[in-house]
Amino acid sequence: MNSPEIQLLIQHLSKLPGLGPRSGRRVALHLLKKREKIFRPLIQVMLDAEQKVKTCQVCFALDATDPCSLCTDPKRDPQQLCVVQDVADLWAMERVNTFKGLYHVLGGVLSAIDGVGPQQLAIQSLIERVAKSQITEVILALNATVDGQTTIHYLTELLRPMGVTVTTLAHGVPIGGELDYLDEGTLFTAFQGRRSA
Amino acid sequence: MNSPEIQLLIQHLSKLPGLGPRSGRRVALHLLKKREKIFRPLIQVMLDAEQKVKTCQVCFALDATDPCSLCTDPKRDPQQLCVVQDVADLWAMERVNTFKGLYHVLGGVLSAIDGVGPQQLAIQSLIERVAKSQITEVILALNATVDGQTTIHYLTELLRPMGVTVTTLAHGVPIGGELDYLDEGTLFTAFQGRRSA
Repeated sequence: MNSPEIQLLIQHLSKLPGLGPRSGRRVALHLLKKREKIFRPLIQVMLDAEQKVKTCQVCFALDATDPCSLCTDPKRDPQQLCVVQDVADLWAMERVNTFKGLYHVLGGVLSAIDGVGPQQLAIQSLIERVAKSQITEVILALNATVDGQTTIHYLTELLRPMGVTVTTLAHGVPIGGELDYLDEGTLFTAFQGRRSA
Repeated sequence: MNSPEIQLLIQHLSKLPGLGPRSGRRVALHLLKKREKIFRPLIQVMLDAEQKVKTCQVCFALDATDPCSLCTDPKRDPQQLCVVQDVADLWAMERVNTFKGLYHVLGGVLSAIDGVGPQQLAIQSLIERVAKSQITEVILALNATVDGQTTIHYLTELLRPMGVTVTTLAHGVPIGGELDYLDEGTLFTAFQGRRSA
């Protein structure tokens, strides 16, 4: 029914994460109707990002410069290193605005099922970074999943002999969380880790 | 925290219909990670659509040609004209694959609240089209909302004196719909319009 240009546009948009055929059509129509104000500016920022953004070869975050602005920021504490699974987790940590050290993006976690071994992750570079720099604490801010915990265990075994403090995020009841709706594992962990009020 | 290129990309993506800051970030990251396979092809189809797709000056649908491929298709019945509010509704009708006539996209419906009068819609061109062509039936496929129904009433008053049959879509229980979950208006309409089984 539609011209191939519109069909291809819808097809490509529909495959983006969180979109489907219906929302793909909706976005396509929105763009085609607001050409001056939305479509052209969007294409421009996409072209810009596609051309300029690269992966930092120190921490593996995304930025327009390599090394990235975080790695070269003199105000960040070079003694603390926060290890995250993904760039999205780095962005999440930065939104919290509490950690002032440096990052290291692993690019995934160890997973027997998905066939992800240490070679597929930025682990070798992490070890070299810790060995060569003034890092005293490595915070393993990985997901509280089985694979995340396996990776934490693996990295702890590697890092502890190097003389650095290795820490992980605290587990417990999420802020605003109701006990009744919490899974047993979290409640158990929160109870075991109880503190004096 | 992020480079301006990434921030702008997220900002623009977040404003698309159905997306927000979280899904905007997710899509941006997805694009930046899959540059060869997703990001560049998407930019290419967007550039293509932006440059080639135009509004048909006969029916006001979107297509790469003007008049559009529907208006110039010799297999379509030139005696039937289906009036829709929006290009999205034309696409919906075409997916049903039952109507084989021509279309006319109004570009909205009359609305006192939003200040949309007959001059803001493609009504003058609709009247001229009906007057000059061999159209015998005009199907007003507008939404079953107050504004849609007002527009149907207004258009019927204009079109009926021109000697064409004016029809609207049937109202009733949606296919697969359960009576218990239906609003009273629909159930009332379905009951009033009951047919012999």
